[in-house]
Amino acid sequence: MIKKIDHIGIAVSNLEEALSFYEEALGLKVKGIEEVPEQKVKVGFLDIGETQFELLESMAPDGPVGKFIEKRGEGLHHIAILVDNIENTLHILKEKQVNLIDEVPRKGASGSKMAFIHPKSAHGVLLELYEK
Amino acid sequence: MIKKIDHIGIAVSNLEEALSFYEEALGLKVKGIEEVPEQKVKVGFLDIGETQFELLESMAPDGPVGKFIEKRGEGLHHIAILVDNIENTLHILKEKQVNLIDEVPRKGASGSKMAFIHPKSAHGVLLELYEK
Repeated sequence: MIKKIDHIGIAVSNLEEALSFYEEALGLKVKGIEEVPEQKVKVGFLDIGETQFELLESMAPDGPVGKFIEKRGEGLHHIAILVDNIENTLHILKEKQVNLIDEVPRKGASGSKMAFIHPKSAHGVLLELYEK
Repeated sequence: MIKKIDHIGIAVSNLEEALSFYEEALGLKVKGIEEVPEQKVKVGFLDIGETQFELLESMAPDGPVGKFIEKRGEGLHHIAILVDNIENTLHILKEKQVNLIDEVPRKGASGSKMAFIHPKSAHGVLLELYEK
């Protein structure tokens, strides 16, 4: 059911500066940068083993990452878990009365699907279920 | 230099309850539970792909995890990165004027070594360097 951690989302104030820390100080490779207007973020990916760091810079103060940074500052934002059947996983979680942000998956890039579990159920962690 | 994410540290109020969420709702396997008196925590590990969730319950309000939970609540605490030569990594980071919590590695369990990078340098993330 759960295969691995797909990525670790990190909210940053300035994507260029944050990428250069991870690239120059830690020697990680930047895999790509893209804008996701629906989430009001600019995103940079870095490979680390089988997973990725996903650095998120807000493009608007009223977006989810903008609000997060205003409240808590830069830092760890969410953990995305790769699953093989997101509908089935959501069904199991619903049966176990887990508090879900998305009861039905949203569509992500390249035909992927994603859904968030509420941090209240996941002991303070914003968990994303992700199916490629 | 950097091989993978060794583990993701998550601060929780009650280890048993948190482990049962990750085990029963998400189907992850608990690998072990141990006490680390130096850090004033009880720790539970769950395998996920090549990495692990490390759930941390404070055993004292004045410990690092106790203080973290008092200030921010339960949630993502740190990311530990597996490196092959921690002294060399710390040397490179010092040369790049990265703010280090530990300039010299501390001894961890089973001969491992660990050192923390200050969140001020790592854009809000508490990064642990870890050598097995």
